[in-house]
Amino acid sequence: MSELDDSTEVTTEAGHHHAPGYAGSKRDVQARLRKIEGQVRGLQRMVENDTYCIDVLTQISSVTRALQAVSVALLSDHMHHCVADAVSAGGPGGAAKVDEAMKAVERLVRS
Amino acid sequence: MSELDDSTEVTTEAGHHHAPGYAGSKRDVQARLRKIEGQVRGLQRMVENDTYCIDVLTQISSVTRALQAVSVALLSDHMHHCVADAVSAGGPGGAAKVDEAMKAVERLVRS
Amino acid sequence: MSELDDSTEVTTEAGHHHAPGYAGSKRDVQARLRKIEGQVRGLQRMVENDTYCIDVLTQISSVTRALQAVSVALLSDHMHHCVADAVSAGGPGGAAKVDEAMKAVERLVRS
Amino acid sequence: MSELDDSTEVTTEAGHHHAPGYAGSKRDVQARLRKIEGQVRGLQRMVENDTYCIDVLTQISSVTRALQAVSVALLSDHMHHCVADAVSAGGPGGAAKVDEAMKAVERLVRS
Repeated sequence: MSELDDSTEVTTEAGHHHAPGYAGSKRDVQARLRKIEGQVRGLQRMVENDTYCIDVLTQISSVTRALQAVSVALLSDHMHHCVADAVSAGGPGGAAKVDEAMKAVERLVRS
Repeated sequence: MSELDDSTEVTTEAGHHHAPGYAGSKRDVQARLRKIEGQVRGLQRMVENDTYCIDVLTQISSVTRALQAVSVALLSDHMHHCVADAVSAGGPGGAAKVDEAMKAVERLVRS
Repeated sequence: MSELDDSTEVTTEAGHHHAPGYAGSKRDVQARLRKIEGQVRGLQRMVENDTYCIDVLTQISSVTRALQAVSVALLSDHMHHCVADAVSAGGPGGAAKVDEAMKAVERLVRS
Repeated sequence: MSELDDSTEVTTEAGHHHAPGYAGSKRDVQARLRKIEGQVRGLQRMVENDTYCIDVLTQISSVTRALQAVSVALLSDHMHHCVADAVSAGGPGGAAKVDEAMKAVERLVRS
């Protein structure tokens, strides 16, 4: 993002030291999020213009589905890279990554 | 709804001629949507900064829940006003409004 | 259900004294629930026979959707009868019924 | 998976030849499914007794959540065993298993 970055590595609070699983699809994820941002602004215009409740609800459902599609895409990237790498490395790290991913699945199912 | 209204009325493709059910909570709905827009921009920054996949997913779940809460609030307003008014007016209009609201519930459950 | 019933009325803990909203579609609801019960027994056979995880998951999704369809049908009946009747009767009872139905919608969206 | 196994093996249409990922928690899964079957029978009794719509809906939500919990548990077992084994084995089989698991996640999120 910044020209100051000299490595693509990041360190999160969980001590991860590598490019995120979505590194290869970052541009696509950002494009989707920008579109979703535009849809949320569109929702504000609909409400501003007193659009009929049901039409606003239909549009919110569309935004929600778009967000869930981003989640599924990110989770797929995460499984293909972060989780698969940890599993391939052997040791307890793989099982820990699987457990962490499953907690994300649970949040996704509940949201 | 009333022939006396002249300015805040809207006419949708379904022929609705009255203020939306959320008229009384419009300011609150707009504040929620602006906050959600800010959260979606925050998501773009997270992705830009290569934030760990799982942390991005957690934040998306938060945005999805916020959107669903807006949907539930709008649907409640719609039921209390648009649907209740149509039912109180008697005739087949009430049942049609209930059917329309139930289709929105189905979309909400599926999204 | 029982030959002792001499009235279709029921009194619930909430003080409801009338036939349920699904009175007219009771046979259909029961048929759906019996089919769902059969599907759950089918799931037990699948697990007993060590069916591949993904195939079991696909079948559970099918049962979950069937249950949600029953919920949507019951909620529709409830809105068309119990809620509409309370709203038509005027007074605060209508708004209370709408609030109660909206809590059910929230549980449905979350489940 | 191994050519040495001979009895508990199953062959699905996808050509899987090993004990399912839930082999170690089969008893727990079956106990949960039997409880869910009992809950579905309880739903039939509620409907038979003209239980108030909202109370039936609340109970259906409880059953739906129980089913989703079984799905999450099965998916976790599947990831820890079937997916992890395929990834550890190297080759394209791991990515195929991840893709297959992600399709199950999508169905779970949608249901």
